[in-house]
Amino acid sequence: MNNIKELLKEQIKFTDGYLDKYLAEKDNPQNIIYKAMRYSVFAGGKRLRPILMMNTCKMCGGDVNEVIPFACALEMIHTYSLIHDDLPAMDNDDLRRGMPTSHIKFGEATAILAGDALLNKAFEVVSQYNGNNPQRAIKAMNMLAVSSGTEGMIGGQIVDMESEGKDITLDELKYLHLNKTGAIIRSACTVGALMGGASDGEIKAVDEFAQNLGVAFQIQDDILDVTGDEKELGKPIGSDAEENKNTYVKLVGLEKSKELAKEYSEKAKKSLEMFGEKAEFLINLTDYLIDRKF
Amino acid sequence: MNNIKELLKEQIKFTDGYLDKYLAEKDNPQNIIYKAMRYSVFAGGKRLRPILMMNTCKMCGGDVNEVIPFACALEMIHTYSLIHDDLPAMDNDDLRRGMPTSHIKFGEATAILAGDALLNKAFEVVSQYNGNNPQRAIKAMNMLAVSSGTEGMIGGQIVDMESEGKDITLDELKYLHLNKTGAIIRSACTVGALMGGASDGEIKAVDEFAQNLGVAFQIQDDILDVTGDEKELGKPIGSDAEENKNTYVKLVGLEKSKELAKEYSEKAKKSLEMFGEKAEFLINLTDYLIDRKF
Repeated sequence: MNNIKELLKEQIKFTDGYLDKYLAEKDNPQNIIYKAMRYSVFAGGKRLRPILMMNTCKMCGGDVNEVIPFACALEMIHTYSLIHDDLPAMDNDDLRRGMPTSHIKFGEATAILAGDALLNKAFEVVSQYNGNNPQRAIKAMNMLAVSSGTEGMIGGQIVDMESEGKDITLDELKYLHLNKTGAIIRSACTVGALMGGASDGEIKAVDEFAQNLGVAFQIQDDILDVTGDEKELGKPIGSDAEENKNTYVKLVGLEKSKELAKEYSEKAKKSLEMFGEKAEFLINLTDYLIDRKF
Repeated sequence: MNNIKELLKEQIKFTDGYLDKYLAEKDNPQNIIYKAMRYSVFAGGKRLRPILMMNTCKMCGGDVNEVIPFACALEMIHTYSLIHDDLPAMDNDDLRRGMPTSHIKFGEATAILAGDALLNKAFEVVSQYNGNNPQRAIKAMNMLAVSSGTEGMIGGQIVDMESEGKDITLDELKYLHLNKTGAIIRSACTVGALMGGASDGEIKAVDEFAQNLGVAFQIQDDILDVTGDEKELGKPIGSDAEENKNTYVKLVGLEKSKELAKEYSEKAKKSLEMFGEKAEFLINLTDYLIDRKF
């Protein structure tokens, strides 16, 4: 596990180098928008989505350099969704990872535009593609866009909003997460596989991995809100319950949640059987994510 | 001129048919997001950007069906920018074209997400491309994305916000408009030309047309805020001056503004000389836009 920590650190650094380049400040009158975009992107994200994409790509025999623009694009999309989620009209959060949120730091108007700009930049970056397989790149762009749109992340956000303060069923909770957080975890993996030259069967296996990992990851998030360490987590413990959020722990209890997290992570790992040794990193990563304390 | 009104009506209908299809409601828990997107998209827009794109495409010998996804994408981007511009944290407008704005109708959170969803949907739609020239389509996507991003529309919005309540120079006003409204008018025309198979020289001419048309259009907007008819315009006369907005009329006066509008529209038309008779529609459109009262 120490080894995976080192590997993750390296991959975060690699990703951040590209994000730094794609979001370089400009010496022009609108420079503040770059400052606001960078502030949120470099606020200490775990880069889980880029890391999943790079490693599924590698596992399928691809070149990480082919996929890095897509990986950075997905991180930008993830970050924009956090900026907009934190807005007063949405979750109204002042802090994220212990730092002032974008609208607290830059004002609400700039935060809205910084979110818009990151979503827009994601597609600027992937459409710079000039490799040898433009058809494949367009398909990857579409998978990315669909996963972050109304039948993916944004769809999940709407359902989440609509169900706030209401009691929902476990199936409804699953639907919500499958879209809100699950969809872009899936596209992280399937875009990685596609750009890595995977066969349809391989993409299907990777998708199954991602779906199960996504659920396990979400359950673990809900568990940590109850059992976690405030300092490591960077947010107060018990805030989900306080805000009456619909979580796995609320719906099925802590013990059953732990069982489910384990069950889904085992299913995730099993999905990668066909890749043999090449799946080693993603299997270790799955264990690492479910054992995490942050 | 009656003829152009008829032609525009037809083209609006054609565009709306595709927008209707791309934004079809879904029978799922997040359906409200489609309702919110459709509400703003079908609130009576003039479809200027799609019409420019389709007609530059045609002028350059292209097939309108190749370019319609891009044309609709640009209209979605234009619409999302209006939804976010109207938000309380931005311009705080309750009405647009005489109708309640998105956040008044659906609440602020849904309006933010509807804007996000339209920007996202734009790239979903263009990345559905499966024609014979994927390289060209990717280039068109990039032109679209750049024009709506931090070095285009969003950049202009930031500069506009920052300059609110300040006195700015004519050069600063030009920079602001060149980005805020000009950038996507340019990409409407250049993407149309590119997808229509234009040569580099033709694209350059079309770009010059679009730049000049964009300035003329903006000046005419500023003039109409002073001389227009409230009913035809759908908003109160004199609101720019009341809000102390930086406009051409404020900076150079009404008479000089009229001269400038004429000058830029003549320059625009002249840029299309190389296209001969094929430029007829765009030339008539330019005259129509500068003579408009709405």
